[in-house]
Amino acid sequence: MKRFALLGPGTFSEEAARYLLDNGKESVELVHHRLISDVFLSTVNGETDYSIIPVENTIEGSVSLHLDWLVHEVNLPIQAEWVFPITMNLIGFKEELPLLPGDSLDEKLRGMTTVASHPTALAQCRQFLRAQMPQADLHETGTTAEGAHFVKDNGPGKGYAAVGTKSAARLHGLDILFEQIQDHNNNFTRFVLVGAEPVHLDKPNEQKTSILVTLPEDFPGALHQVLSAFAWRRINLIKIESRPTKKMLGSYYFYIDIEAPMDSVLLPAALAEIEALGCQVRVMGSYPSYTYIGS
Amino acid sequence: MKRFALLGPGTFSEEAARYLLDNGKESVELVHHRLISDVFLSTVNGETDYSIIPVENTIEGSVSLHLDWLVHEVNLPIQAEWVFPITMNLIGFKEELPLLPGDSLDEKLRGMTTVASHPTALAQCRQFLRAQMPQADLHETGTTAEGAHFVKDNGPGKGYAAVGTKSAARLHGLDILFEQIQDHNNNFTRFVLVGAEPVHLDKPNEQKTSILVTLPEDFPGALHQVLSAFAWRRINLIKIESRPTKKMLGSYYFYIDIEAPMDSVLLPAALAEIEALGCQVRVMGSYPSYTYIGS
Repeated sequence: MKRFALLGPGTFSEEAARYLLDNGKESVELVHHRLISDVFLSTVNGETDYSIIPVENTIEGSVSLHLDWLVHEVNLPIQAEWVFPITMNLIGFKEELPLLPGDSLDEKLRGMTTVASHPTALAQCRQFLRAQMPQADLHETGTTAEGAHFVKDNGPGKGYAAVGTKSAARLHGLDILFEQIQDHNNNFTRFVLVGAEPVHLDKPNEQKTSILVTLPEDFPGALHQVLSAFAWRRINLIKIESRPTKKMLGSYYFYIDIEAPMDSVLLPAALAEIEALGCQVRVMGSYPSYTYIGS
Repeated sequence: MKRFALLGPGTFSEEAARYLLDNGKESVELVHHRLISDVFLSTVNGETDYSIIPVENTIEGSVSLHLDWLVHEVNLPIQAEWVFPITMNLIGFKEELPLLPGDSLDEKLRGMTTVASHPTALAQCRQFLRAQMPQADLHETGTTAEGAHFVKDNGPGKGYAAVGTKSAARLHGLDILFEQIQDHNNNFTRFVLVGAEPVHLDKPNEQKTSILVTLPEDFPGALHQVLSAFAWRRINLIKIESRPTKKMLGSYYFYIDIEAPMDSVLLPAALAEIEALGCQVRVMGSYPSYTYIGS
């Protein structure tokens, strides 16, 4: 039995975790926390085996702060990554709909008074909300799950609805009034699983390696020199991102995702070459990457 | 009179805006919105002259979604950027302190029952909250400003406090109980100002140019080839970040910040060379960058 710490319950993190782990070989327990610092710390302290961290495109906390924690505060290798689509639902009391004026669902939505959710979730459903519920007050909550909680707490009969996940609706015994209300369908959140041991999952995957490279000094072309080590070996870089080192203003490290496992022939040679150039290299993890297949 | 749209009131965006604009030559009006989509749209629709957008390290919305909006949804050039320190304060009712048990402020803080704020703000003050107020319930709100609003609404006598900006305390007539309660002092939020016209501010600055480069196809070393155009001209790149194009899975563009104005001799030549390689280049703006001097 493995224990996974994550932001939740009722979050995108929970939905993404269930997708990743449901087909896994091991039985799992999800341990929910409300603060990302508590998620990390439960794994650092050995209360859980893994942390599930949204690291890209997330509305659950700040991506760059999550990455900073991973780099500066904890020393847990990445054991897996996956991307999961962000889909938003309008959540409320189905029993309330007959009480609202109008015949169609469209007309009834115009009778709703308040929509509660995380501000970014509301912003992502702007077109839907403007078209279908222009009269509704927006109520901002700290998480999408808390939006559903707010609706539940206020009870039926007031015309309250939330924007959020299906698991938040289930958690609070609410109904999905409208599925997929997000303005764009091409938003994905990227998650990583960090922990001391590798995970074993029954899913097709490609292998990736993530490294941090700190340049010896801030000189023009330093990054170009680092990338040469990969380019001439024809090693493909998937992602590259510069981040402040926090030690000195204007000093940067580079977070680089590589389309190759650490045990490939060429990658260790490339990293050795980069270190020989005077750069610091830290391997954040070499791990399987899972693509969401659709439900 | 210029009009600036931003997330607010009582936000870090508002404090950063006041820092940037207070010494400006022009008289300004701040127009507050609660959703980042409404901030952008007010400038697109001509109701405001500029939008102020947090684009790095922010707890006000999602950085990557803000950048995506700037890239995919609106066509407003960047006219300025600046970084602003993230400092958190404990906000509450000073009149309430004599009612709480204990003599020192430390003892009194242990009598407080609830701390309200944005989840990421609470996570950033974790060490302070664990040490000084381990008994307090955490109440998560959609913004730090709303945390202060929640405290004000519940009135004195209940031992409620919020974590947030000084401007949120002022806005709601609350007091600063404790300054600078964040765990780390090296967190900065980066803001950009977007709009049709250049701004004129009385501050020392360096000039930067931001570009988007879309590679012709995903081949190993493509990025290396692009960076060569800068490296041999000794043009310094400050920041580089790959982002999905959203058109095709696995297709990326690169967001690159360059330490040179667009009207320098070498930069246009480098961009022409990159285009000749088959890349698409879009200039996001060439603008002054202001460093926060401290208050």
